[in-house]
Amino acid sequence: MTYYFRTEITGTFDSVVERAIAALKAHGFGVLTDIDIKQTLKQKLDVDFRPYRILGACNPPLAYRALNAEDKVGTMLPCNLIVQDLGGGRVEVAAIDPLAGMQQVANPELTVIASEVATKLQLVIDQI
Amino acid sequence: MTYYFRTEITGTFDSVVERAIAALKAHGFGVLTDIDIKQTLKQKLDVDFRPYRILGACNPPLAYRALNAEDKVGTMLPCNLIVQDLGGGRVEVAAIDPLAGMQQVANPELTVIASEVATKLQLVIDQI
Repeated sequence: MTYYFRTEITGTFDSVVERAIAALKAHGFGVLTDIDIKQTLKQKLDVDFRPYRILGACNPPLAYRALNAEDKVGTMLPCNLIVQDLGGGRVEVAAIDPLAGMQQVANPELTVIASEVATKLQLVIDQI
Repeated sequence: MTYYFRTEITGTFDSVVERAIAALKAHGFGVLTDIDIKQTLKQKLDVDFRPYRILGACNPPLAYRALNAEDKVGTMLPCNLIVQDLGGGRVEVAAIDPLAGMQQVANPELTVIASEVATKLQLVIDQI
């Protein structure tokens, strides 16, 4: 089982980030967190890394249901979508498959919600 | 297998958040993201929720090793620590067990790194 959905696109890194955010929004996800890995690793470790962003995506109604079903599910929220520069004008976008991560949680109600989120994130990836 | 390490503390919610951030720092974790679930759910859905924060913790050297070992591990970063108000003066702190979440990733090098992070996060929880 893979733990993510992915796609590869030709374009500039920044334009793909914008397309990813727009696709998330179209499927009801806001971006609650945004980590610039390249910048963070430069600041903290003084190492060079390729452009790499981690967007923390949250669909509020589904997050609310998940939190009511499993009070510690916040340890796995928000659902991340990453954008990384592969070089040569290629950019990869990958979203976590919440069903993979939440397999450790023996909670049938949460599994139903994670399936809904997984379906939406797959659509986001297909749409970018 | 549980997917988190947890502890329960008597104290005010805000003081426990501060203690959690200090304990993370003592073990080399910075807080890259901080989501106020109570506030977010009020804003987005107009529902009332108990005080609940999601702190995204990152140990830069270990994150760098993880990203080099597994390029899509960013879908599971940072490692979250949650603080939630249980009522009656009790506050729960729980950190994700990265070994649980990363079990879906068939990558022995990542498993070694996740074990190191897990050990540190268990120490953080014990110290709060």
